[in-house]
This record gives sequence, C-alpha cells and structure tokens, in this order.
Amino acid sequence: MEMKLPGQEEFEASSAPRNIPSGELDSNPGPGTGPSPDGPSDTESKELGVRKDPLLFIQLNELLGWPQALEWRETGSSSASLLLDMGEMPPITLSTSTHPHHRWVLFEEKLEVAAGRWSAPHVPTLALPSLQKLRSLLAEGLVLLDCPAQSLLELVEQVTRVESLSPELRGQLQALLLQRPQHYNQTTGTRPCWGSTHPRKASDNEEAPLREQYQNPLRQKLPPGAEAGTVLAGELGFLAQPLGAFVRLRDPVVLGSLTEVSLPSRFFCLLLGPPMLGKGYHEMGRAAAVLLSDPQFQWSVRRASNLHDLLAALDAFLEEVTVLPPGRWDPTARIPPPKCLPSQHKRLPSQQREIRGPSGPRLTSAEDRHRHGLHAPSQELQRTGRLFGGLIQDVRRKAPWYPSDFLDALHLQCFSAVLYIYLATVTNAITFGGLLGDATDGAQGVLESFLGTAVAGAAFCLMAGQPLTILSSTGPVLVFERLLFSFSRNYSLDYLPFRLWVGIWVATFCLVLVATEASVLVRYFTRFTEEGFCALISLIFIYDAVGKMLNLTHTYPIQKPGSSTYGCLCQYPGPGGNDSQWIRTRPKDRDDIVSMDLGLINASLLPPPECTQQGGQPRGPGCHTVPDIAFFSLLLFLTSFFFAMALKCVKTSRFFPSVVRKGLSDFSSVLAILLGCGLDAFLGLATPKLMVPREFKPTLPGRGWLVSPFGTNPWWWSVAAALPALLLSILIFMDQQITAVILNRMEYRLQKGAGFHLDLFCVAVLMLLTSVLGLPWYVSATVISLAHMDSLRRESRACAPGELPNFLGIREQRLTGLVVFILTGASIFLAPVLKFIPMPVLYGIFLYMGVAALSSIQFTKRVKLLLMPAKHQPDLLLLRHVPLTRVHLFTAIQLVCLGLLWIIKSTPAAIIFPLMLLGLVGVRKALERVFSPQELLWLDELMPEEERSIPEKGLEPEHSFSGSDSEDSELMYQPKAPEINISVN
Amino acid sequence: MEMKLPGQEEFEASSAPRNIPSGELDSNPGPGTGPSPDGPSDTESKELGVRKDPLLFIQLNELLGWPQALEWRETGSSSASLLLDMGEMPPITLSTSTHPHHRWVLFEEKLEVAAGRWSAPHVPTLALPSLQKLRSLLAEGLVLLDCPAQSLLELVEQVTRVESLSPELRGQLQALLLQRPQHYNQTTGTRPCWGSTHPRKASDNEEAPLREQYQNPLRQKLPPGAEAGTVLAGELGFLAQPLGAFVRLRDPVVLGSLTEVSLPSRFFCLLLGPPMLGKGYHEMGRAAAVLLSDPQFQWSVRRASNLHDLLAALDAFLEEVTVLPPGRWDPTARIPPPKCLPSQHKRLPSQQREIRGPSGPRLTSAEDRHRHGLHAPSQELQRTGRLFGGLIQDVRRKAPWYPSDFLDALHLQCFSAVLYIYLATVTNAITFGGLLGDATDGAQGVLESFLGTAVAGAAFCLMAGQPLTILSSTGPVLVFERLLFSFSRNYSLDYLPFRLWVGIWVATFCLVLVATEASVLVRYFTRFTEEGFCALISLIFIYDAVGKMLNLTHTYPIQKPGSSTYGCLCQYPGPGGNDSQWIRTRPKDRDDIVSMDLGLINASLLPPPECTQQGGQPRGPGCHTVPDIAFFSLLLFLTSFFFAMALKCVKTSRFFPSVVRKGLSDFSSVLAILLGCGLDAFLGLATPKLMVPREFKPTLPGRGWLVSPFGTNPWWWSVAAALPALLLSILIFMDQQITAVILNRMEYRLQKGAGFHLDLFCVAVLMLLTSVLGLPWYVSATVISLAHMDSLRRESRACAPGELPNFLGIREQRLTGLVVFILTGASIFLAPVLKFIPMPVLYGIFLYMGVAALSSIQFTKRVKLLLMPAKHQPDLLLLRHVPLTRVHLFTAIQLVCLGLLWIIKSTPAAIIFPLMLLGLVGVRKALERVFSPQELLWLDELMPEEERSIPEKGLEPEHSFSGSDSEDSELMYQPKAPEINISVN
Repeated sequence: MEMKLPGQEEFEASSAPRNIPSGELDSNPGPGTGPSPDGPSDTESKELGVRKDPLLFIQLNELLGWPQALEWRETGSSSASLLLDMGEMPPITLSTSTHPHHRWVLFEEKLEVAAGRWSAPHVPTLALPSLQKLRSLLAEGLVLLDCPAQSLLELVEQVTRVESLSPELRGQLQALLLQRPQHYNQTTGTRPCWGSTHPRKASDNEEAPLREQYQNPLRQKLPPGAEAGTVLAGELGFLAQPLGAFVRLRDPVVLGSLTEVSLPSRFFCLLLGPPMLGKGYHEMGRAAAVLLSDPQFQWSVRRASNLHDLLAALDAFLEEVTVLPPGRWDPTARIPPPKCLPSQHKRLPSQQREIRGPSGPRLTSAEDRHRHGLHAPSQELQRTGRLFGGLIQDVRRKAPWYPSDFLDALHLQCFSAVLYIYLATVTNAITFGGLLGDATDGAQGVLESFLGTAVAGAAFCLMAGQPLTILSSTGPVLVFERLLFSFSRNYSLDYLPFRLWVGIWVATFCLVLVATEASVLVRYFTRFTEEGFCALISLIFIYDAVGKMLNLTHTYPIQKPGSSTYGCLCQYPGPGGNDSQWIRTRPKDRDDIVSMDLGLINASLLPPPECTQQGGQPRGPGCHTVPDIAFFSLLLFLTSFFFAMALKCVKTSRFFPSVVRKGLSDFSSVLAILLGCGLDAFLGLATPKLMVPREFKPTLPGRGWLVSPFGTNPWWWSVAAALPALLLSILIFMDQQITAVILNRMEYRLQKGAGFHLDLFCVAVLMLLTSVLGLPWYVSATVISLAHMDSLRRESRACAPGELPNFLGIREQRLTGLVVFILTGASIFLAPVLKFIPMPVLYGIFLYMGVAALSSIQFTKRVKLLLMPAKHQPDLLLLRHVPLTRVHLFTAIQLVCLGLLWIIKSTPAAIIFPLMLLGLVGVRKALERVFSPQELLWLDELMPEEERSIPEKGLEPEHSFSGSDSEDSELMYQPKAPEINISVN
Repeated sequence: MEMKLPGQEEFEASSAPRNIPSGELDSNPGPGTGPSPDGPSDTESKELGVRKDPLLFIQLNELLGWPQALEWRETGSSSASLLLDMGEMPPITLSTSTHPHHRWVLFEEKLEVAAGRWSAPHVPTLALPSLQKLRSLLAEGLVLLDCPAQSLLELVEQVTRVESLSPELRGQLQALLLQRPQHYNQTTGTRPCWGSTHPRKASDNEEAPLREQYQNPLRQKLPPGAEAGTVLAGELGFLAQPLGAFVRLRDPVVLGSLTEVSLPSRFFCLLLGPPMLGKGYHEMGRAAAVLLSDPQFQWSVRRASNLHDLLAALDAFLEEVTVLPPGRWDPTARIPPPKCLPSQHKRLPSQQREIRGPSGPRLTSAEDRHRHGLHAPSQELQRTGRLFGGLIQDVRRKAPWYPSDFLDALHLQCFSAVLYIYLATVTNAITFGGLLGDATDGAQGVLESFLGTAVAGAAFCLMAGQPLTILSSTGPVLVFERLLFSFSRNYSLDYLPFRLWVGIWVATFCLVLVATEASVLVRYFTRFTEEGFCALISLIFIYDAVGKMLNLTHTYPIQKPGSSTYGCLCQYPGPGGNDSQWIRTRPKDRDDIVSMDLGLINASLLPPPECTQQGGQPRGPGCHTVPDIAFFSLLLFLTSFFFAMALKCVKTSRFFPSVVRKGLSDFSSVLAILLGCGLDAFLGLATPKLMVPREFKPTLPGRGWLVSPFGTNPWWWSVAAALPALLLSILIFMDQQITAVILNRMEYRLQKGAGFHLDLFCVAVLMLLTSVLGLPWYVSATVISLAHMDSLRRESRACAPGELPNFLGIREQRLTGLVVFILTGASIFLAPVLKFIPMPVLYGIFLYMGVAALSSIQFTKRVKLLLMPAKHQPDLLLLRHVPLTRVHLFTAIQLVCLGLLWIIKSTPAAIIFPLMLLGLVGVRKALERVFSPQELLWLDELMPEEERSIPEKGLEPEHSFSGSDSEDSELMYQPKAPEINISVN
C-alpha cells in the first residue's frame, strides 16, 4: 500500500531530515499575490502554532434512513441495527440520523462502517459530475458569507429560511438538523460504537458526547486555533427540490456536537434534496469537503465577498485538478498520501496564472540552488585573503552565540539525545578501541579509546565552530594508523614515539592549512570525491573484517578427519618422577583419565590447562588446538553482523509502535554486541576476547601516560615523520571537512553558522594532545554527528493524519555533546566488564559498519543499476536526464578509480593512499572533458569553475528545450537530502 | 516506485495466476449494450489474436522549432542541437520538425529527451482545461469520419482543406505535415539517436526509417491487427487561428513513417495554432491521445457517425474521469500502472448509466461468487446418492478427454515444464527420503523414495481424475509415519509388516469413502480448517528441523574448555605386544606421534580411524568426539536455510532479467542443497551424510522388495492396525482433498473438469501398492502441483507496455507428469551421488519448507497484525469490513486451537492428531455462534448450510447499508487467488 513518488528513492537512503516543507517557497510569494494561501508558512510562526489561516478540519455528515428505515433495516449489518436501536430523537418519525462518513484535514479519511474504524488517510478522488452538480447547486442555493450566527440553532434557522420550503417542512428540517449526530468513537473497542455504547444513558447525559469530542485522539493532533468545516449531505424524501446552502460564519462558533472533534466551526455546507439515483448527494458532499480542504480554495473562500467569488474559486480549483482517465484508473483505488505535498507556490490566483503561463514563476536557478542547499553554504567558505583570516572570522561569528549554546540546551529533548549519543559513542569507543588494539598490538586499546574520546570530544565541544559535531575515531584514521603501525614495524621503530612526531607534524600542517584558509578548497570535493573516499574506506572495512575473521581460523584451526592435530597427553616431569602427585589426582579424575597404562610413564590425559596446573607438561600435536572455536567465532561474527543489519531494517517495518522501532534500529550495534556476548557467555567457549587492562594504565605494558619523544628511535626519524604526517594531514583534512560540509548543509537550517577553519584548528590542537598522551586520533565522524543532529530536530508537533511533521531546525548547543563525553569519560570504570566481549562480535560490527556505509552512497545505487534490466530500474531523476550508457560510463570510471586505489592499497606503498584519494579531485576535473556540465550536474555536483563557466539558465537542464520537461522541475526543486551522509565511523 | 492497489496483498502471496481479465464480465453484457466496448474479450478469440476492436497504438508527434529556432538553440541540450544539425527538409525554412514525445497503448510512455529513453509506462494524468480546450477546438474544427484517404498525401490534402487557410499557408502546412518525423530509435546506444545517426546518409536511404519501424521492439509486442492513431500538435506562428482536425480513416492506412511503429493508422488528429502561453497544444495533444486510448471512447468513436457523437463520447469520458485535487496531488507525479485494470463492465454507454445509476448493473451475488470461483467447483461435488456414483461420474467425465490428454502435450512449453517439475520432484524425493530414513531408522530411505515416487506418480498420472496433480511425499504423511514408527517401536513391533496392515486398512477405508461419495464433504473444509492443518504441519516441520539439528550437537558434542572429553590415545593389543608394527609406523609418522615415551606401553597418538586400521584400539574419553562438527553442521543448516529463503525472494527483486530471477527462485531448494554440499566438500569435515545403499536394494538391510505380511508380529496386530489406519485415512483424505480443491479452483479455468472421487480411488490403490513394497506413502502435494500448473499456463503473448499478460488457461494433459516420473525412476541410478549430501543441509531445507508454508497463509498475516499498530496495518479488504478486535478474536481462537493441537501432538497420544485436525471443522461450526456470517465471509468462507441460511443479498456485506460501501464492491469482485496454496510438501 505504499506508493513512492518518482525519484523519491534519491531522497530516502539518508537519515537526514526528509521533508523540508514546501512552505519555504511561500516565504517569497510572487508579486501581486497578496497574503500567501494557507499552507505551511514561515518557520517562526509555525512553531508558535500560529498560521496565517487556521487549519481546517472538515467533516462530512450524512443523513441516513431515508427514504425509509425499512429498506436499510432489511439489509443492514449488525452495526446498522445498533444505530437503529438507539433512536434517541423520537420526535421525528423519520428516524433519520446523521453521522460522519468522511473527514479531511489534509487527506481524506473514510469511516469503514463495518470495521468500525477510520481508514488510512488517502488522497481524495472525486468524480467530475459531482463537482459540476455541486457548482450548480451552490449557484442556485443560499450563500451566506460572514453569517453572524452564534449557535447551531441560529445557523439552522438562517439556512432554512428559503422560499421553497413550507413552514411545516421547515420545522421538520430544522428538527432534523438540530438532531445530535452520531459520532464514531475511536477509543472504544469490540464493536463499532456510535456516540455511546448505552443508548439510554447517553440521552440522559448531555455531557458525554462533548467529553468524547474532547477525548477524540484527533483533537490532540490538531494545532490550537484550528477551525472546523461541516458538510451535511443526504436525501430527504419530503423535499421537492434540492436545497444547497454554503455558510461562512463571521466568528467561528462551536456548533454543539455537530463535529466529531470539538472545534469552532467556520464553514457550514448543506446539500439536501429529493432522492436521486446513485450516491448523488454523498458525492456532492465529498466534493464540497474536498474543495474546502484545498488550501487555495480555502484561501479564496475565506476572502470571498459574494457568490461570484465562491464560484470563481471553484472554477480555479477545477482548472488545476489532475484528471485520471476512467479506463486506466479505478476510481475506488485509494492513493496513499505522497511523501511531499505539491508545493503551492505554482498555484497563483488564476488571473496571475494566465499571464505567467501554467508553470508559474520560475526562480532563477542560482537563487534556487542556494535556497535548497544543493551546495555547501558559501558564506563561510569565502576566502578572506589574510593569514588566519578564516579562523578569526569563524571565532567572531561564533562568539556571540556562545552563551546561547548552553541556554538553548534546556529542553527535555536534549536528555534523550544525550542518552542516545552516549550509547553510540561508547559503542564506537569499544569497537574502534578493540580494533585499534588488535591492529597495533596494544599500542592503542579500549582504555585509550575511552580516555581519548572523552578528552578530545569534550574539548572539541567547548571550542569548536560546529559543536554539533561528534569527534570520534573514524575509518580512514583507523586504516591509516594500521598502515603506520606496520610501516614502523617494518623499520623496527618504537611505535609511540614515532607516532608522536607524526602527530606533531600533522598538527603543524593543519595549522598551515588553517592559516592559508585551505578549507575553502573543500568545494572541490564533489560527490565523486566523497563517494570514492567513502567507498574505499568501506571496502577496507569489509576486507579487514572478513580477513580478521579468517585469521582466527588459522589461530584456532579446524580439525579435519585424519589431520595430525589430534591427541595430546599430559607428561609429568622426569622419568619415574613425582609419583605422589599422580596418585593424588587419580581418584578425583577416575572416570576421565585412562590411567592404568599411563602410570608407568607418568602421563595422563588431562586437558592442557589442568595439566599445567598439576605441574605436568602437555605433549602431543593436539595440545595447542582448541576445538570448535573457529566455527563458533564464525557463528558469532555472522550473528552479530546479520542481527545488526536486521535491527537496522526494523525502522521501516510495519511492526511495533514507532518508538520501539526507532529504539531497536538506533541501538542496533549495541544490541548486536549484547546478543553476541550473551551467546558466547551461554556456551562458555574460550573465544578470543577484547583485551582490557586490569587497572587504569595504558594498554601497552610499561609505558606511562606521556609518550617519550624519541624512545629507541634514531633522532632523524622525528624529521622523517613529516612524510607520513603529510599524508595523514590530507586524510584528516578530507575526513574532517567532508563531514563538516555535510553537517552544515542548508537543509538542516542551522542558525548559528559553521566554522570550518575553527574546527580544523581544534582538530590540530587535539591531534597534538592525543599524540603526546598516546591516545587515538580523532576527527569529526559523519554518521554519529548526523545522528546527533537528528536527535535534536525541532519539528512541528501538531500534524494532520497523513501529513509528515514539519522540520523546523536543530537545537544548536554545546551541552549535549559535552555531557556525552563526560559520561564517556566516567565509563572508563566500566572497562572490566568489557573483557567479556568476544573479538568476533566486534569484527561482525565492523563488517556491518562497512556494508552500511557502502550501501548508503549513490555510487552503490548506480552499481546496482548495472545489474538491472532497464525495465526494472527505479524511476530515478538521474535516469530521466542522463542516458543510461552515460550513467554506466560514469559508474565504470568510478569503479576503475576504486580498483586503482585498491591496488595501491595492496602494495607496500599502501601508506600513500591519502594522496591517491586527493587524486580523485583531479580525475573529477578530467571528467569535464568526457561529460557535459548537465550530465555532471545530475551525476555529481559542479565544481566552482564549472558553475561560473555555464550560463545560469543552463543549470536547469534543457527545461526550455521542448517545453515538456518542466514537469519534473517540480521534483528537481525539492530539497536534496545529503546523499553521502556516511563516511565510515 | 511500486504502488499496490488496496487489498492487493490479499492476492499476492500465491503463485497462482494473478490476473483474470476483467473481460470475463464482459461476456454477458447488460441488455441493450450492443457489442461490448473494447477490452479483453472472450478467451478463444483473444488466443487467436482477434479482438472485436483492434488494439490501438497512439502516438503524439509534436512540432518543434517554432516560434524561432533561435530560442531553443540558445537553451538547448546537446541532443537538441543534434536534431537541429540534421535539417533534412530544407524546402521549408522554418526548420520545424516533428518527433514523438509520448505514446500510448494502454498506459502512457513519455520520451525522456535528455536520457534518450522511453519512460516506464504510467497512468496518464491530464489537466481539465486541456480537455475542455480540446473539446472546443474539435467542436469548431474539421471532423472527417470514414475518410477515404489512401495515403498520407491524400490525408494531408483533406485536412488542410479549410477555409481559413490561404493557399500559400496551405502549401506550407502541407509540406510541413509531409515532412518525415524523427523517431527515437530505442536500439541504439550511447546518445539519443533520432531516426539515424548519420543525417546525410539517412536522407539518401529512404528505406532506413521503415526498417527501423519494423525493428522497433514495441512492434513485436503488439498483437496482429493492431492499428495506430496519431496526434500531431504544436504551435505554428504563421497560423492566424487554431486548426483542429479529427480524422477516422475508412480503411486503416500505413501513413509512411508517421508512426514510430509500422502500423496502419485508423485515427489522425491535428491540433495546431498560433503560439499560446504555456504548453497548450502539447497538453491538448496529450488529452486527445489519452482519449483515444480509453477503451470506451475508442469504442464510441469507432462507431460515431457525426461530430455530435464524437463530442458525446468526449462528454461521457469527462463524466467518468477521476479527479485529484491540486493541493494534494502533484500532477507531475507518475502513477505506475495498477496491477488490475478497472473492469469496464461498469462503464455502459451513458444513457444506460443514467437509468441504472453510476455503479452499474449489479450481478446477483450467487452468480458472481460462482463465476469467480470463491468456492470449489460445485458440479463435481454434488452427491449422486448411489454407491460409487461419484467415481463412475468422474470416470465418465474424464474418459472422453483421455486421447486429448496426450495430444495436448505437444507444445514446447511442456518440455520446460518437465525439466522444472522433474528437478522439484527429485529434490522432494531426496529431502523426504532422507528425512524418512532418519525418522524410521532406515525402514524408508532415499532409494525407496525415488522408486515409490516414480511408480506411484506415473501410475497416478495415467489413471487420475486430475492428472495435473503431482503425487509426492507430503508433510502430514511424513509426520504420521514418524509417529507410527515410534508407536511400533514402543510396542516392539516389526515395523514394515505392521505398516503393511495399516496400508491395507487405509486403502479399505478410502474405498469406503469413495463408495459413499465422502469427497463432497470437502466443502466443510473451509479456510479455517485448511489453515489449521497447514499451520500445524508447518510448525512440526520447523520444530523437527531445529530439533534434529540440536540433536547433532549431542552426537557431536561441543568441547568446552576443561570438559573431560579431551585426549585419546591408540593402544595396541596385549602388553608388550606387536612391536614390529609399532616400529614400522614410527618413521612414517615421526612428526605427529609422540612416540618416545609411548613405546613402553604400545600406544601412539594416532587418530582413532588410523589406529583401528593399524590394529590398535583407541582409548580415552576424547576418542569418540569429533571436534568442530557441531558448529559446522549448524553453519550448513543456517546457510542452506537462509540461502533458500534469499533465492526465493530473488523473484521479486529488481535485479537480473526475469528469466534468471525465475530460475533462481524456482530452483532455490536445489541450489541451496548444492551450495551446502559444495561447502561441505570444500572443508571435507566428517559431517553426517545421507545414507544411501550401495546397490539397488532396500535401505533396510536384509529385507526383500516385498514386505512379509506378519514378520515377527502377533497376528492380531493386523487387526489392531485398523485403528491407526483410521487416523491415517482421515489425514490422507484431508491432505488429498484440500489439495484437489485448491487445484480445481475456478480461477485456473480448467476445461476438462476435476475427479475428486477418482483421485481418492487412485490414492487408495497406490497406498496398497506402496505398503506391499515397503515404499513411502503418497498423496497429492499442493505446492509442487501448483508449480506444475503454473509452468503450463497459457497466456496471451502480445502485451502493451505496462499491461500484464492475460491468463488463458492451463495445458491440461497427462504427459508432462508421466515423463517427470519416468525420469525420476531413471534417476535411481544417481543414488550413489547422493551420499555426499550432508544431513544438516537437508534439515535446513526442511526448515525452509516449514517457514515458507507457514508464511503463505492468511492466518500468519493476521498474527502479524497483532504486532502492528493500527496505523501501520496494510489496507486489507478484510480490515475494511471486519472490526479489528473481531479479527484479533478470530486469530486468537485459531492460536488457541493450534496450541491445543500442539499439546496433543506432544503427548503420547500424538498419533491421534488427525482426529483433532478433523475437530477443527467442529470448532469452525461453533464459530458461527460467535461471528456473524458477514464476518465469517471475510475471515473465512461459508459452510454449505450457512450459504443457504443467508438471504442472497446478505452475502455482499452491507453494501446496501449506507450506499457508500459499494466502492469496494469492485475490489471484492476481483478474482480471489487461493490464499492457502501450500500444505507442506
């Protein structure tokens, strides 16, 4: 039952805020538009729940029971009979009663009478004749605009004051209209329940329906100030001719229990008439309600001063409807709400449209692109030309916000954000700490990881330009550290002192980059570079995870039948040696030791650990093998990987309430680790575990917390360290700035600005600190920072059924990050618990991170396209605008680049891979000779020069070529979610 | 990009034919309708490719290049410039050229100009004003019906003969219209290519475009006799006023290369005019094309005799369009084609509709239900009242078809069906044979399974009433055999002789059931019973598979650290015994034997098998443990399970061509078994393997092919066997007849009728035969039989883009089944290969079968509903008509029944479970007191008495209650696919 809008796939993979309300476009209405039509208005007013025009809740009540109750009693279902039995209003013998059948806020909900529930919200579909009949009924009927009625009684009196009615009929009609309608109460259970389950009591208790009106779950969803519109439609046998009335009340009035939800009514529409064939009045009523729910019509009718205006608004609506041919679309099929509502900026009042043509005003492309954040915010990335100019500007820009960075954190949402990010950070610290320890033979470890994360993270939160960033060990740095370690081992270097010098040099280079404002170059990192970067690191993750797992099968070999690793016995020292000891053990282990023959040679079949304990020596080829560990490790590895993957997918499943789903999905890694540990503990096998020092001291035995500057290394290595440091600087620059660009994208609507130079400066300082202390290196981590931002989203609370909440911005502050890292620091004392974590579980999580990162990038989607027949390819915007072969060519070039990077990574020159990553920028530049700018705009983004080199108009690909392509301009202007939101962290 | 119709979920789980064309309803048009509107007509005529009205291919050609080439050259993309360069027709200096932008057969396809490909087919959406403008243009324009033009030239001359044109303009216009349009050629690659890549050569070679017309891939899809309609639209600056022309040609004429596909044209529509704002003519052209593609409009306009008829048809179209409000639906969003086209039977000519009301004629419900096969075909299930009356009738009904049962098999499709079903049958034989051997300690085995399948299957195919049925070992019978075996072991019985008597009794009981025509009782097996039956068997499968897997960990225990199962040495016979042997082995195994101390006691550390070979005796607690097997078996188990599951899902993925997807999915079990074997062979561990006798003799050593009638059992057990036989008879009756009902459902459109009594008779005879030979018992297996039918589907070949092929029927014959079983018999010689199949792999497949069967039933869907918040529940029809709490209550009752069945199954009285299954019928009967017939109709089906007890009208749940529910009557009348199509086999 889910329909995706074309091209929607493009926007879905990210965890970033998905729906930027189209209202953003309304903030600058076209000239002469006047106040913009109802719809999400600007950010501030929406947050306060104030809309220019209040939200309208529309309900269609239907008169039932005519022509004769007999007929529907004959065929009625049980719920219908229930309705009959109630018969609350005996004065009218017609036993007619109204109850709501449909309701609208944004979308239509239909009451499933038999099932006794409201349907899922769906796009309303109408029949054209019903709209036309409605038009003629209204044209001939009664239209009261700014009716001063103050109650339902007054209103009913006004609308029934028509000539065609005899006084007797008028009385009957009035009584009928004043009858309390039966509402379906959503809270009650077993049976469809109208108004109240006990009909007799209900009529005594006048308060009950009002209470129900207030308790209606929809009530809580609607924003304050919402108004109601009611449509009453039905057949009445005693009417000789149709009776149509449309009322706009001057002041919204609560019309008793006319509406299901207790709201003051603004509009009232009455459509009654003699019986006609089909569902005439029902469909007319639906048409009226759908009209009222249309923002443009609503806007017009609120301002209409006479019948002519009303009909003009109806005609304007008719001009813009979408028509589906009857032979190809079943009108009874329900269309689920689209993920993005069509933007209303195209829909100007019709006289405007006639001048401008149906596609409305076209924004200039540059304006548009900046509004929608297709690129990084450019203000912060303008070169000042002075030494440290960018840094100084960053500090100047951020300083005024500093107090508010703490005050803005005083919100309950920040607590849950802290909990969530804390767990994520700790999981990260454990995983990366474990892997670093593994890769560096204990030069790094879990303890260092905790300590470093806490110190560096907290310091960064206090100083950085973008305090929403969460500092963490990231994939690229981990990969580099591993290479650096094997490099230093190749040259028999003392690792930590060498690493200290690398750190010093990196800090120096980074300061140079800050001084020269190199961060502005970040605009040359297009998606091509980002994806190459991300894909390589992800692949290294996957390769390493699988490799480490397979290594375990060498450490704990599998025992094949007939292999020599069979048999082991326990030999006691010296020929004829310590007999007494042997005899002592015999009675205890009588069952499991074949002692009768072994007494002679002082040997037993005790397992090796016990043997050593007894003073013996395990002898034999099988003594060093631990059976079952290899396969069990593999099982743990696969279990944690698949479990984490599965939990991640829970978010989009239909099961469980959304809170549970979100929880399971957000904590997928933690839960997968816990499951792995539980499984391991349950079976109690001697799987390799995470190494954790028993006390608070560095993991590497015999070193203090300060790294000695030279150790055993020759002094000149401190100079030579500049070379790897240069490479690491490139890597850190890329890793840090790609993350920073993603985080500071326009679509997150950050108010306090970014601080690219300041951030890099902080990273450089912390680099120095962590190198001196021998702690891991840290840069901003994309995924966890995005998760941080996501947990701090401000969203409009009230939302109509079928509507997605509106994104208002992020709670920008420093406190959540700070608290998270303080908690992480405190968690060092948890370290002893961590030694129960088996390494294969961590490898599984490692694999999961690689696969998740790889599958999040557009490159992967394009690789998948290679395997899909054209017919089955998703309707990506990309594919509508670039020939498939060109898309494949671009993908193939990326694959080749990746292959070359992989080859370099596999040679002894692996350590230079950061330089090669930078080379991707050059390759991208060269691609300009192969692809047209239009193609590159769709496949990638444009580099600064390209933007300038193309006439502004050309950036909207070929829209003016045939006139027929502007139809996806709408889609193109929808906000682009960041497509690369993950570098492995 | 996939949208499901509401309630579609209900129809999807099955592998059964999905779309019965709505044309079925057209076969009996309402009175006065005349020939029914175009649309799928009756079966026979469609197969021959003859439609009453030919299919229409419609193309919109647009005139480009006006007002000035300058403008679009300025903004144009590369492909646009390409078009310009071609300029084939220099006589007109306007350099205007036409090319198709949209095309329609059933759905719309749009040319993505930049991407150079046709979009996916989608439901066309129109703007209402364009339809209205079209109407007025046609009303004022030229309408030529039955125009006698024989060529494009004549046609162009006719349509330009309007007063408003000056002779000069007329000439220009004619030249323009005669210009050859540029078609996008789908077969060429890199760049969008219009007509030809080499403009100069193309103009010389007049044949090229024609060849392309023929080579167009769409051409092959369209059925013979298809006609074309062309719409030419565009702006022409030299026209002073709009020019509209609509032409119906008397005889369809191939109009040169006007159409992309070489088809004779029937309709021609010209919409030209002076430049206007927006995309006026383009949209009008689309509207005209969409109109032409509407079956009702097409039908009317083919018969129209004047302008009035044409406009009336247009108005009728407008009356029936579906309207989507502009504020809630983005008109540029593409709606993918619905899975079922709306049925056209509701759309009568408008004068009819006025009388009957918009929802059209309503069929009486009984008629409808029978037409759509909501129930089993009732003719075959009428009691004759005579002894063996049903059997005799079956034979009489089937006998005349017997020759055709062989002649109808002469079709290529039958070869692929044989291959597919053969592989499935062999997989089944291996799996069930292996499991039976496992469960009966070799009383049954793979060899018996092959032999029995071949003999029984082939015999059944030759004799049965429904030869499409594939006889196979099925889950229920396997479960019963397992219980019977443990029962006979409890009483220390000789199993096979006891089983022989059970078989004899079962055959007798079944004959009694045939004689008394008990098969008619099958109508009491409603979905409730079927689902209970299927769920229990599936759960037993799952439980057994996991249980057997866990049993392996007892046989091959996991060696925990410190466990006593460590160490083993090889002791040689006698103290100081055979020294020479010891010395001989020493040099050979120097490395792996600790011999220096062991020489004294004649022992070595040789692995047990080698030790035994050397004449020694393995001693020690670790000798019987084989390490690593437990976890490796678990890995194999999980691998084969998940691999089979994943491959099954490949069918619905986007990857690979559909042939590959279908292959992978259809052979998922085979491939999973192969993968498991490969993995096992690769590592070469001593996993438990399938036991296969080395020669062609029964698996149980020491028995012949004929089972001795008593063996060591006391004679009276042959009488006592009647009791378990009674239970087995119930089971076999249920299993056989549930399958038979599913296979003979109306929606498969079987022509030759069913043979319920004859089938049961055959099963009884074969029961006897297999019992005598000690072979497994066989009944019809649902899944494999459905797969058989599915592979023999006849479908309409030609289909328009976006249309699903029409199901025409099944190739009913006996030959495919016969050949499959002959091949299975021949495969007995493959048996030696089978001993490489590890048992854990078979357990994995076993688990897969259980899970697949369980997840295919509606019961499981309802259990899932329990876990879903109401908001996220799929829009099942069920939920629209039955209150959620009632649905949950029904599910809960089923769960309780299942729980009780499970408890009985777990007691020593397990063997009576068939009786309890039958008890479900009673429970279902009792449910009538809890649920209303309407609820039961949606949740289950009705039993025969209920059907009679309810007035006919009541069967259409409450449609007449409020008048608003008839909107899903459409969906309700769509064919129901069998929801239970799987009992475990």
